[in-house]
Amino acid sequence: MRYELTKEFLEEIREAIALSNTAYIDQRVILLHAADIAEIIDELELEEAKFIYSHLDEDQQADVLLELEEDVRERFVESLTAKEIANQLENLDSDDAADILGELSLDRQLEIIGEMDEEDAASIVDLLNYDEDSAGGLMQKEYIKAREDWPVNRCVIELRRQAEEVEKVYTIYVVDSQDHLVGVLSLKSLLFSSPKTRIRDLCQEENIISVPTSMEAEEVARIMDKYDLVSIPVVDLQKKLVGRITIDDIVDVIREEAEKDFQMASGISESVEAGASIWRLSRARLPWLFIGMFGGILGAQVIGNFELQIGQIPALAFFIPLVAAMGGNVGVQSSAVVVQSLANGSNQFSSILARVKKEALLGLLNAFICSVVIFLITWLLETPLLGLTVSLALFTVIIIAAIFGALIPLVLDKYGVDPAVATGPFITTMNDVVGLFIYFSMGMLIFGI
Amino acid sequence: MRYELTKEFLEEIREAIALSNTAYIDQRVILLHAADIAEIIDELELEEAKFIYSHLDEDQQADVLLELEEDVRERFVESLTAKEIANQLENLDSDDAADILGELSLDRQLEIIGEMDEEDAASIVDLLNYDEDSAGGLMQKEYIKAREDWPVNRCVIELRRQAEEVEKVYTIYVVDSQDHLVGVLSLKSLLFSSPKTRIRDLCQEENIISVPTSMEAEEVARIMDKYDLVSIPVVDLQKKLVGRITIDDIVDVIREEAEKDFQMASGISESVEAGASIWRLSRARLPWLFIGMFGGILGAQVIGNFELQIGQIPALAFFIPLVAAMGGNVGVQSSAVVVQSLANGSNQFSSILARVKKEALLGLLNAFICSVVIFLITWLLETPLLGLTVSLALFTVIIIAAIFGALIPLVLDKYGVDPAVATGPFITTMNDVVGLFIYFSMGMLIFGI
Repeated sequence: MRYELTKEFLEEIREAIALSNTAYIDQRVILLHAADIAEIIDELELEEAKFIYSHLDEDQQADVLLELEEDVRERFVESLTAKEIANQLENLDSDDAADILGELSLDRQLEIIGEMDEEDAASIVDLLNYDEDSAGGLMQKEYIKAREDWPVNRCVIELRRQAEEVEKVYTIYVVDSQDHLVGVLSLKSLLFSSPKTRIRDLCQEENIISVPTSMEAEEVARIMDKYDLVSIPVVDLQKKLVGRITIDDIVDVIREEAEKDFQMASGISESVEAGASIWRLSRARLPWLFIGMFGGILGAQVIGNFELQIGQIPALAFFIPLVAAMGGNVGVQSSAVVVQSLANGSNQFSSILARVKKEALLGLLNAFICSVVIFLITWLLETPLLGLTVSLALFTVIIIAAIFGALIPLVLDKYGVDPAVATGPFITTMNDVVGLFIYFSMGMLIFGI
Repeated sequence: MRYELTKEFLEEIREAIALSNTAYIDQRVILLHAADIAEIIDELELEEAKFIYSHLDEDQQADVLLELEEDVRERFVESLTAKEIANQLENLDSDDAADILGELSLDRQLEIIGEMDEEDAASIVDLLNYDEDSAGGLMQKEYIKAREDWPVNRCVIELRRQAEEVEKVYTIYVVDSQDHLVGVLSLKSLLFSSPKTRIRDLCQEENIISVPTSMEAEEVARIMDKYDLVSIPVVDLQKKLVGRITIDDIVDVIREEAEKDFQMASGISESVEAGASIWRLSRARLPWLFIGMFGGILGAQVIGNFELQIGQIPALAFFIPLVAAMGGNVGVQSSAVVVQSLANGSNQFSSILARVKKEALLGLLNAFICSVVIFLITWLLETPLLGLTVSLALFTVIIIAAIFGALIPLVLDKYGVDPAVATGPFITTMNDVVGLFIYFSMGMLIFGI
């Protein structure tokens, strides 16, 4: 069944809800995938949403809850009792349940935990202890493990029991008697082996890739990506198996990381949804605007020193935006490339010097091309002297911007600051100020004023 | 075994190669994961790399080849004979083999295909026909399928045969007698069911999610992400099963897409590696620099119209960079948010008008805050009249920039242009020009000149 959420479909659903047309909802909505139902509910009013929700079975309710957009879920969860939420959390994987619970106030958390089955509650409370950006914060307690000394037939029986709890089975983790991770086993090899074979003789024991609970989410993503894994076991300090992370959570980490970098590069400091309140959106953007204003005021101070010269040759002022903008553009370009290769962890051995040298060389080439073009145009539009000033200033500014653009993220990274900060208005602003000083100084020299 | 590629380790490897110390290579390098060996080879000279390569077994050679960085692989493949390459491609999944083959010249492709086993060659040649950014270009021919009328025990026997070819089994695809996809089955449910059960009674037949060969890679990524899939079946126009796409390839698509957007936002038009040649890097950056220059020249024309006024009140020129930069910053911020929600396909029903209204409101708030701050500072540093000019201009510029920043990507998207283009120097440049005009016009009015 092809599903697409069109405006018409949504209207039909709304009408059906208004008329309490249960047959329509059962036939057209309830059969859909939980992610699709969530997409529909995201667009509905709370009361409409509750109508649909009440028609779902308990498993579906939990899955839909998980898939809702965060702000919609918040409103929705508020309208449920602690007992209702507890029931639904019990139907989810522990990591998802912990994520939803973590969004609530501490009071509400305690109330819901009180309503939960002891064992489920213990897993979730344990997961809440980990930093949400660490392997511990991403992992789930649902995984399948087998003892290395089991034969295949016993393993199948035990797995059948365990598998009731675990929705998606990718890999079986093999442990010793102390729960230390000693190997991994694919379902495929289990399926195709004779019943008496020992697990230890079947499983892969070399190059077992696992991560500690404390590893940063981004690093886990890098490892799963590098080794093309769909799930990765998580171990504690004693190397005991404590959980697993599945690729769907890692895809989210990669997306969020990319969005954060993109927003940072665009001058938005916090990750905010387009649907957030005006105040939150404003708070995320103002810091960069203030940096921009501060830069503008510094720029005004620099130009202020040349008030006399501008009075004599007002045409000097014409090219202020050009010089300022080009420094910014070049700086952002060269910093973006460096930020990105740092994020990918690529070229780790190319020394800082080599990288900066390459950007300087590239700056030289682009500076040459741009300043020749601008010299010809300025000459044509204004005077040869002004052309010379603008093109010489541009040449210098581009080279400096290229070098600083590459250098700043490298330095930030060395001192543990997220280098993506550098691609924002930060570099633009700095280059504005430096560029203007160079431009007017050249003007003074060339015009002899 | 924890692996980390330190400078020291790399030096040791180099030394071992220089001394032809095979024992060291066997013990310290050959046992590593193919992705790690590739990471080492990425850092070595061609001759050193070949030494390590010659110690790998055939399967490893193919896996390492696949994991090498593209430019390193190109050089490496050039040094191999067609027969050697053909052997290694046969050991890879068809999609990976097609990717590597697709990087070569047509002559070389034909030569290699000539050396390959007929059946392998046919799969790969078929895959080369698809656009590399489509589902067909991402899919592999290795997957496991079962006929709906088989009993479980027959299925296990058939799968055992098929599974020799398929490295990673996630889901079994169930087809009818004409190869139409009719259901999916997890290995787990196969493992835990009785031998006589028919596959048709075991498999899930509702909400089967598949994609057509022609679907864009980005859309496939969105679907696999939405439904949390680790593999997805690909069907042709007749709904016949022709391949599957695995999540590792989708992770690459997501990463590349994010990088492209980030580069676009930073004013780099083509996706280029930091390791590319100066000429390619320059070509990717110059278009934006030319747009920036063009904007700067337009800006110069605008200011040129106010030459007289600048001659009278040179202090007006001081705040040119501030006005220009703020328009750019605000425009980039509001466009970035819109570009991102378009990329996520979120809020599809919020109409264009509502989105622009929200950005305008946000612009109003930020404009108010910024212009009060700048009024006080400019008054302090310069004169109240200049303060009034700058703050009123800033107020207007921020609101206009916020509105256009939101509007432009929406319009571009409507007309099928990648909206990420908008976050680059494009918006900055437009806002510069508009902002300057507003600023000087206000100055004329307020100073009465």
